[in-house]
Amino acid sequence: MFEKQAGLMANTPGINSQRLRALLDGVNTFGRNPQTGGYNRVGYSDADMAVRSWFLEQMRADGLAVHRDPVANLFGRYGPADGPCIMAGSHLDTVPEGGAFDGALGACVALECVRAMKDVGFTPATAIEVVATAEEEGRFGGMLGSQAIAGVVTAQWLNEARDADGIRLADAMRDQGLNARDALDAARPPRDVKAFLELHIEQGPVLEQAGIPVGIADSVAGVINLAVSLLGRANHSGTTPMNLRADAFAGLSAVGQAVRSINAEHGGERSRITIGKVTLQPNFIHTVPGRADFIINIRDTDPGTMAALAQAMEQAVRDAAQANGLSFSIEEQSRMEPVRLDGTLVSLLNEEAHRLGLKTLTMPSGAGHDAQTMQALSPSGLIFVPSRDGISHAPEEWTDWEAIEKGAQLMLSALVRLSAIAAD
Amino acid sequence: MFEKQAGLMANTPGINSQRLRALLDGVNTFGRNPQTGGYNRVGYSDADMAVRSWFLEQMRADGLAVHRDPVANLFGRYGPADGPCIMAGSHLDTVPEGGAFDGALGACVALECVRAMKDVGFTPATAIEVVATAEEEGRFGGMLGSQAIAGVVTAQWLNEARDADGIRLADAMRDQGLNARDALDAARPPRDVKAFLELHIEQGPVLEQAGIPVGIADSVAGVINLAVSLLGRANHSGTTPMNLRADAFAGLSAVGQAVRSINAEHGGERSRITIGKVTLQPNFIHTVPGRADFIINIRDTDPGTMAALAQAMEQAVRDAAQANGLSFSIEEQSRMEPVRLDGTLVSLLNEEAHRLGLKTLTMPSGAGHDAQTMQALSPSGLIFVPSRDGISHAPEEWTDWEAIEKGAQLMLSALVRLSAIAAD
Repeated sequence: MFEKQAGLMANTPGINSQRLRALLDGVNTFGRNPQTGGYNRVGYSDADMAVRSWFLEQMRADGLAVHRDPVANLFGRYGPADGPCIMAGSHLDTVPEGGAFDGALGACVALECVRAMKDVGFTPATAIEVVATAEEEGRFGGMLGSQAIAGVVTAQWLNEARDADGIRLADAMRDQGLNARDALDAARPPRDVKAFLELHIEQGPVLEQAGIPVGIADSVAGVINLAVSLLGRANHSGTTPMNLRADAFAGLSAVGQAVRSINAEHGGERSRITIGKVTLQPNFIHTVPGRADFIINIRDTDPGTMAALAQAMEQAVRDAAQANGLSFSIEEQSRMEPVRLDGTLVSLLNEEAHRLGLKTLTMPSGAGHDAQTMQALSPSGLIFVPSRDGISHAPEEWTDWEAIEKGAQLMLSALVRLSAIAAD
Repeated sequence: MFEKQAGLMANTPGINSQRLRALLDGVNTFGRNPQTGGYNRVGYSDADMAVRSWFLEQMRADGLAVHRDPVANLFGRYGPADGPCIMAGSHLDTVPEGGAFDGALGACVALECVRAMKDVGFTPATAIEVVATAEEEGRFGGMLGSQAIAGVVTAQWLNEARDADGIRLADAMRDQGLNARDALDAARPPRDVKAFLELHIEQGPVLEQAGIPVGIADSVAGVINLAVSLLGRANHSGTTPMNLRADAFAGLSAVGQAVRSINAEHGGERSRITIGKVTLQPNFIHTVPGRADFIINIRDTDPGTMAALAQAMEQAVRDAAQANGLSFSIEEQSRMEPVRLDGTLVSLLNEEAHRLGLKTLTMPSGAGHDAQTMQALSPSGLIFVPSRDGISHAPEEWTDWEAIEKGAQLMLSALVRLSAIAAD
């Protein structure tokens, strides 16, 4: 599909950075908390639905053929009315108190690319569909928008999914005039989508540290969450001699200390082991902790490495329990397998970047993105732009506009190349 | 004072275990939570005030000269109306959801000793005052009852003390018809109290593990609480490579792992180092912890050892911060110096135990008790009875009645010996 060369154009389209910025600013008039500077467009909230109506109108005003699917994914089609498309975009929803760029930037860049094509009168041979996906941030524990497009949601999940407050997905959607069961009708047949491209902020420090403006993801790391409980005896910190304790915190800290050596022995550059959530009981100054509950979060792009890391961490829990007179339980709370993104698109993006004189870094994605879901439907690619200090999911989230322009220009070049040729 | 021998008695008084148990059951009709089996007589609560009225009436019915002081300490005097006294007792207040024995047992044993003396017509040459102290459990951060008796409270503290909910001591006392400022009038002159004796549950596992029914405390451990903060960067667990992290939990676990070796190197049998309270931020599964706040609780009966342990733990914090790219702060949140209880009383209690054929263990007290405060006013002694599984401050708190009877008999013998001789 990608082998044929695109024909020459009269004028090369270029990103209008100011127009792009104005579009992103428009999105970010929705859900802003003036107290914190954070954005609150949680999936299927009023602010999320309002930004969707607004974004759909922007695409309509640009002359795109727009439509909203049953889960509130938005599509704006440019080019031939019939036949397959090249799809590009990202999500408009945010985590609570999220940043200005996570998701929204990718949807805006996709629309700016179409605008730039129109500026120079470029008409694609294969249609481009700008997509603004719904519920990517996992309020209900999935990536409903892209999963619905890719046809990987099930009726059972749609029926059972709840958010952290216990609100059912079906109820949240109904309150916004949507029917959760209709999500099954949102699936696009594989022949409809020839490729999917997403631009997203990196949400990590790698590009910034390397001084490289654009990253090209070749894979998305998988995740295993192990829920661990260490059980000892809660006793008075003054009256209980050290040798008569069963101290759950002592066990926890032994597991914590094992992380570094296990990562060095069983992991690689793409491995991550994190203990981010810890609850001690009773958590009093004067009481030896009787119980520690924590999650071991393990990530890698290689399934075998992930399994080896998980196995080693489980052994560390057993060792820590034995050394401290504790009992324990380990439960695999969740597992998401790693995804390899399309290799041909990785090459194509690198070629276009080279042509544009852009330095790039081919890298894994540590976080989950729509592109990994879309890979199940069609070849998918993912462009990263740097995150200042690696910060995301926070009001401090920031990417320099110079880098955004470079990433957007790469997206534009790739879309031109992919759409300039008629689909098979 | 203790050198003179008591004269012989016609009949040796003996503890009536059933009567003692009925008295304790009476106390424990107040503040019981039938759902949990826990007791709730928090200082200056309605249940605490009600049990005090009831206990005062019990003492009055026994013919004691009763009085309630300005902070609601109760006194029941037996023997000469004038002159100094031997004081014995403990507290009636509990922690929230506390056990049946902590405090109340000691007050009941003191009253039972007087009842036993009356059974055999023993009239002391020096008066005995049964005391049921107020607010020992530190709802307001002190041991107000015994501190008021010992004359070590200040007007400033009385004015500023608040409980964990922010309720002022002065307001809580006013609601019960008491005036906090009058606490300064509760001080007893040192000449008034020739000795203070307290029986209390051990609240630890040492006596039970050793199979010894009675402990005699020679000292009360001091406590240093170091409030530590480790500050790193909260970053995404997937997008942040291990070598670019500043993981506050990694630092915390390094400090946790140092506890055992520091205790072995700088501590002794009476040393305790506990990290019981930990707060991570943001405490999310998918986020590298950016901050860890925790308390290092250090106890020993020797001030030099305490200081050495604190110094070594502070160094461990510095090392952990440096190794993990964290900044840190350490604040001495509170410090209570160790107290050496009266050596002559320790000997006297051991002699009486030997005479009664009781095996005893001379031991430190890891927890704080009225006896340590009273030691500032007069020679003070502390008798322990075993706690099943070392459990206290919980509904499961339990001491076998066989052991209680032995401890109470020792208290009775000591009170007879001390009171049989006229005070100087």
